[in-house]
Amino acid sequence: MKKVDHIGIAVRDITNALPHYIDTLGLTLLGIEEVENQKVKVAFIDAGNVKLELLEPIGEEGAIAKFIEKRGEGIHHIAFGVTDIRKRMLELKEKGVHLLQEEPNVGAGGADVAFLHPKSSFGVLYELCDKGDKPNGHL
Amino acid sequence: MKKVDHIGIAVRDITNALPHYIDTLGLTLLGIEEVENQKVKVAFIDAGNVKLELLEPIGEEGAIAKFIEKRGEGIHHIAFGVTDIRKRMLELKEKGVHLLQEEPNVGAGGADVAFLHPKSSFGVLYELCDKGDKPNGHL
Repeated sequence: MKKVDHIGIAVRDITNALPHYIDTLGLTLLGIEEVENQKVKVAFIDAGNVKLELLEPIGEEGAIAKFIEKRGEGIHHIAFGVTDIRKRMLELKEKGVHLLQEEPNVGAGGADVAFLHPKSSFGVLYELCDKGDKPNGHL
Repeated sequence: MKKVDHIGIAVRDITNALPHYIDTLGLTLLGIEEVENQKVKVAFIDAGNVKLELLEPIGEEGAIAKFIEKRGEGIHHIAFGVTDIRKRMLELKEKGVHLLQEEPNVGAGGADVAFLHPKSSFGVLYELCDKGDKPNGHL
């Protein structure tokens, strides 16, 4: 892992939360998109050296909806930027890390993403995020 | 806020968690120290563009011990690097942000630190971290 790409933050309503990040904290909104297969609306915010990814649930079935129902709003995951995600996944599995999936999913900005099981990471949900050469990777 | 200095992560035992970060994820340990007034042992890990701060409770009374008791291990806070922390605190208060303290505390590496109330930040505990000109600021 070479760097943190973004920190994922679960919020009930991006529209309500954005003024805090933009007006109060003085950060910059990069863009908003919907990621239907993850059942979330996503706002990327530039925090200088790393992005904050606000995640608003679409409907009541997705992982973010369930996270908020169980724990309330708050920090959801940390995403490492990687290249060659399938190779990284294989290396981690060989080191005994439990992944939440066998194959990457398509996440925000068209990135390939995969998650490590929090039980393998002392309670932290880590994401691998491979933007490849996608021109709009993470906006 | 210009950049994220570190992400704080509560763990039961730094010695148990470190091999995951160093051997498995391939990150670099910067150093370990105890911050007695916060009742934590702290390990700083270089994640490229940002640091990960593993926080192990000392005793059962501090904020990290209580966090783990209530929610288990996991991501605890996001720290923005700032200068002139008292001015930043005043600006935030004037914008209606609730801070957890009136004056900064001394945190790891001798930095001046202060926390925003999560209710002001949509469930996220944000820290302001002012390392000033301390030569050993955050190791």
